[in-house]
Amino acid sequence: MDTPILRLNRFIGIGLALATLPFAASAVAADVLPSWSDGPTRQRIVSFVQAVSTGGGKDYVAPADRVAVFDNDGTLWSEQPVYFQLAFALDRVKALAPSHPEWTTTQPFKAALEGDAGALAAGGEHALLDLVMATHAGNTTEEFQAIVRDWLATARHPKFGRPYTELVFQPQLELMDYLRANGFKVYIVSGGGIEFLRAFAEQVYGVPPEQVIGSSIKTRYEVRDGKPVLVRLPEVNFIDDSAGKPVGINQHIGRRPILAFGNSDGDFEMLEWTTAGAGPRLGLLVHHDDAEREYAYDRKSSVGRLERGLDEAGKRGWVVVSMKNDWRVVHPTARSPR
Amino acid sequence: MDTPILRLNRFIGIGLALATLPFAASAVAADVLPSWSDGPTRQRIVSFVQAVSTGGGKDYVAPADRVAVFDNDGTLWSEQPVYFQLAFALDRVKALAPSHPEWTTTQPFKAALEGDAGALAAGGEHALLDLVMATHAGNTTEEFQAIVRDWLATARHPKFGRPYTELVFQPQLELMDYLRANGFKVYIVSGGGIEFLRAFAEQVYGVPPEQVIGSSIKTRYEVRDGKPVLVRLPEVNFIDDSAGKPVGINQHIGRRPILAFGNSDGDFEMLEWTTAGAGPRLGLLVHHDDAEREYAYDRKSSVGRLERGLDEAGKRGWVVVSMKNDWRVVHPTARSPR
Repeated sequence: MDTPILRLNRFIGIGLALATLPFAASAVAADVLPSWSDGPTRQRIVSFVQAVSTGGGKDYVAPADRVAVFDNDGTLWSEQPVYFQLAFALDRVKALAPSHPEWTTTQPFKAALEGDAGALAAGGEHALLDLVMATHAGNTTEEFQAIVRDWLATARHPKFGRPYTELVFQPQLELMDYLRANGFKVYIVSGGGIEFLRAFAEQVYGVPPEQVIGSSIKTRYEVRDGKPVLVRLPEVNFIDDSAGKPVGINQHIGRRPILAFGNSDGDFEMLEWTTAGAGPRLGLLVHHDDAEREYAYDRKSSVGRLERGLDEAGKRGWVVVSMKNDWRVVHPTARSPR
Repeated sequence: MDTPILRLNRFIGIGLALATLPFAASAVAADVLPSWSDGPTRQRIVSFVQAVSTGGGKDYVAPADRVAVFDNDGTLWSEQPVYFQLAFALDRVKALAPSHPEWTTTQPFKAALEGDAGALAAGGEHALLDLVMATHAGNTTEEFQAIVRDWLATARHPKFGRPYTELVFQPQLELMDYLRANGFKVYIVSGGGIEFLRAFAEQVYGVPPEQVIGSSIKTRYEVRDGKPVLVRLPEVNFIDDSAGKPVGINQHIGRRPILAFGNSDGDFEMLEWTTAGAGPRLGLLVHHDDAEREYAYDRKSSVGRLERGLDEAGKRGWVVVSMKNDWRVVHPTARSPR
């Protein structure tokens, strides 16, 4: 049966296989992460995901341990000119001002009402904390979520003129979907407020409330007119930033992630904790270097400063993702409904 | 085509359907919850699970909202003569005593070393807290888990002579499996320590670390010799008991459960919070009324006191589960490996 035709077929077959091999090892199907530019960054992500999810491979990781953590501000959505939650707090001060006549003469509320960013900044962290407590506490968890949803439905970003929930990053929506399709559990680990995030994380990112980790204020259980409620108190419970991120991850997840994605030095410890574990690990940082489509900032920025991360990414094997070069699209052109 | 035979078939068919209807509504397949006695308690549980998981039914609940919470001590495993975690702390005092010669003359350590329950009790909560801090802090999260696992592997219960992890309740293992098979996510919500529980919850109950909620001490992120660790500090972070349980549930899950199972007044608020939500809800309490096979205690017990729960279960529609009558088996005869 070894006819010349069969031999020819075999030869062509082997030739094709040899020609295909290096191509197959480096190319990625075009429909995977379509908003990511074809290049080493996308390649690195896809290789990692394939390695940990391919049964029998040396880098295989059981599904239960395929935990990915994403920072939110600057990593999943924009964070300039101010963190969106601060924009919420400032709008909330205006909404509550009629019941607080004393705010017209008391800092930081006076500055907030007058839009005086300089005076606000001069107040430092203490002023911000006062603002957050006055605008985030004093209601129940259910009331607060409704307030955030109402705000998100109407507020517009000063530069883009779009709802804040449309200023998410399209490549990251695709990456989270891709990870989930490959058996990952995707968590958000944010310095922002956990209940603020939960008001939109499921609808916008597909991340359910039990997979949202964030900063929080204390709550108190009360029965009001026979109906139990959780009342939000003006007292810090937990700050989920910098060295607080591994603490929050351990408290909520109880396992070490294998992939961490951040964008600022507030994410440094989260990437350090994640990538110090045994087996395959991937740490990534979004570098905001795209003044044209979004913003360009890093070492000198007061919002989302990235300095130590840039200095140490190379020696730690972390991937610095260039928004300008690695992302074909930044924000989605129209919000795809989930 | 309406032959006498067809008419007869139709008549028999209708007759069978009528005869089957009340039977189908009340009977439960024998292989469901085999360690639960056939009776109204088992019936109530099965009816609830069927109602919330049957598509198109009026009480249908989407899988994402099928959240069940279980207390641990006294609900999933025994808790007499002392909470098992206290037995761990007392054994730990003995193990650490050689490096703490001062403990032979300092309370509550002296009482712990001498097995003087009276002196320990006289010290009250403060003494217990001192014990916990001395025995649960000062190590890393990974070291602590290893210490707990070593203890569980060797320690034996004073009455039953068995490892503590064999003193789980067989009917509850079956119930958790049954809930998971019907799309529920099962959480543990315990007054016990979150890291203590995580050391065995996945292996023993099939509950992964991210679904364990408990009391905790603070941790601090540190880099030691280039290796990041979480150090356990002698400082209370959160007490997940009584009114703390709804707070812990909201912090970790961010949704209200539809089923809550407890056994003591420390679970009262958890059941209250759970069953106050809209739609179908189920609250259950294990009543330890089985002196022969386990223990009998309720209103007067210092461990697992159940008083308000017994008084109000009826008017709140909560199910009081009699260990003596509703459970065919209490502890598994041999640990089934997972």
